[in-house]
Amino acid sequence: MKKHNFDDAIHLRALLKNEYQGVLTESYNNMVGPFGGITAATLLNAVMLHPERIGDPVSLTVNFAGPLALGEFTIEAIPMRTNNSTQHWMIVQRQNGEVATTATAFFAIRKETWGEQELTMPEAVSPDTLIPVKPRLPSHWVQNYDLRFVEGAFNPKEKKEQEISLSIMWVREQPERQLDFPGLASIGDSFFPRMFIRHQEFMPAGTVSLTLHFHATADELEKVGSAHLLASAQASRANRNYADQTANFWDKDGNLLLSSHQMVYFKY
Amino acid sequence: MKKHNFDDAIHLRALLKNEYQGVLTESYNNMVGPFGGITAATLLNAVMLHPERIGDPVSLTVNFAGPLALGEFTIEAIPMRTNNSTQHWMIVQRQNGEVATTATAFFAIRKETWGEQELTMPEAVSPDTLIPVKPRLPSHWVQNYDLRFVEGAFNPKEKKEQEISLSIMWVREQPERQLDFPGLASIGDSFFPRMFIRHQEFMPAGTVSLTLHFHATADELEKVGSAHLLASAQASRANRNYADQTANFWDKDGNLLLSSHQMVYFKY
Repeated sequence: MKKHNFDDAIHLRALLKNEYQGVLTESYNNMVGPFGGITAATLLNAVMLHPERIGDPVSLTVNFAGPLALGEFTIEAIPMRTNNSTQHWMIVQRQNGEVATTATAFFAIRKETWGEQELTMPEAVSPDTLIPVKPRLPSHWVQNYDLRFVEGAFNPKEKKEQEISLSIMWVREQPERQLDFPGLASIGDSFFPRMFIRHQEFMPAGTVSLTLHFHATADELEKVGSAHLLASAQASRANRNYADQTANFWDKDGNLLLSSHQMVYFKY
Repeated sequence: MKKHNFDDAIHLRALLKNEYQGVLTESYNNMVGPFGGITAATLLNAVMLHPERIGDPVSLTVNFAGPLALGEFTIEAIPMRTNNSTQHWMIVQRQNGEVATTATAFFAIRKETWGEQELTMPEAVSPDTLIPVKPRLPSHWVQNYDLRFVEGAFNPKEKKEQEISLSIMWVREQPERQLDFPGLASIGDSFFPRMFIRHQEFMPAGTVSLTLHFHATADELEKVGSAHLLASAQASRANRNYADQTANFWDKDGNLLLSSHQMVYFKY
């Protein structure tokens, strides 16, 4: 089987202590620079590969500070504090000496406890009855995903505003790929900007800060395999250039795997 | 008028470039170390005071890496990248050379755009009809807040589990204080842990990562004055030592000022 674009994109080579090198190619192109999800996954991967890492990701915040051009970049991943079963990281991505992305991550060894899920998955028809979104350009991040909208799709040709910014979709990697933490991190950014959906129009827009809360353990991801996840996303408020987006991702059995919260720049 | 505990607590003295010194006193004591909200506000204040700062806070993520003891601490606040109207920060709080807290912040000069609010405030009786929570200890962070529960209060003596983790409350600083960004950041962490509410029991619990999304502009905060905010908080899922909490804060006219998302450690 051909190596997945995703594994190529997040591939890193260890340089000095705490330092990794990667190469940005065209496979996850977005409007300006790469799809934010692939950046989040690549930064997370630096921690996953780090010899001092303990546990699994619980939270990750990624701040998109400047555009990344095609070619080499470096990632510095520093374990800021390691306790018995928890670890805090600072991560900086640079290109030509300039900061492109900053991040923090929290990892932990999670033990058995009482548990409960309050946020249930929305109603949705089966993904088999829906048609995947086609990327508008041959080299565009959407080519790497199978996105099937249950509601709140993006149809700018119809120019018909939606009343609310809600979208519900099924999503998996394309071609199919076993779900893992970097894969889930990237999927956590796979919704189009809420302002596109609300207005059914393109406009200047881009995530400035993305926070991922990982509810799932590695075992749960393993069990998902490469099946579609059901996901919903909505804005709470758009005000003066920034709108938030809260998105949630469930497996087909209704387990909440990930909550994703972001602030998104827009001009409209 | 006596200086507010809050202004004493977030007070910082500039040392070297990018470096500030503060002193932790007992006024915002929590179970172990200070209330997380006061730490978030103090870290944000380092950026607010920084001579290179532009704009107002749009997002702030604070990671609680280790306990902070009473006494001096330092905060390093580094402008990682400054664009025309946006700025990205990394912030580290240390005590005796050890990392206690890490954070990232995104600031921006926000301009007039189209705007809309989708998340409406919940129904609630007036704060005048409710009794504020009394701190159980004389020197406890709750003494600095006026918290009035509409639903989902914490009554461990009754030992009656709630069916869900939802709380709705009115909150303002005590004594009254003009709302500003550090004040709002701190209020953003003013809910008790969701696991306390769900089970109506104390248990080991503490925020590990807190993300604040500021919807409000400085003008809106100015208009609020020192009035109560209405706030709601709920967990989506508790699983293997970690539960999330999404909280939202509205002014009395229903404007959404802040969304707050956190991952909270618990043992139960």
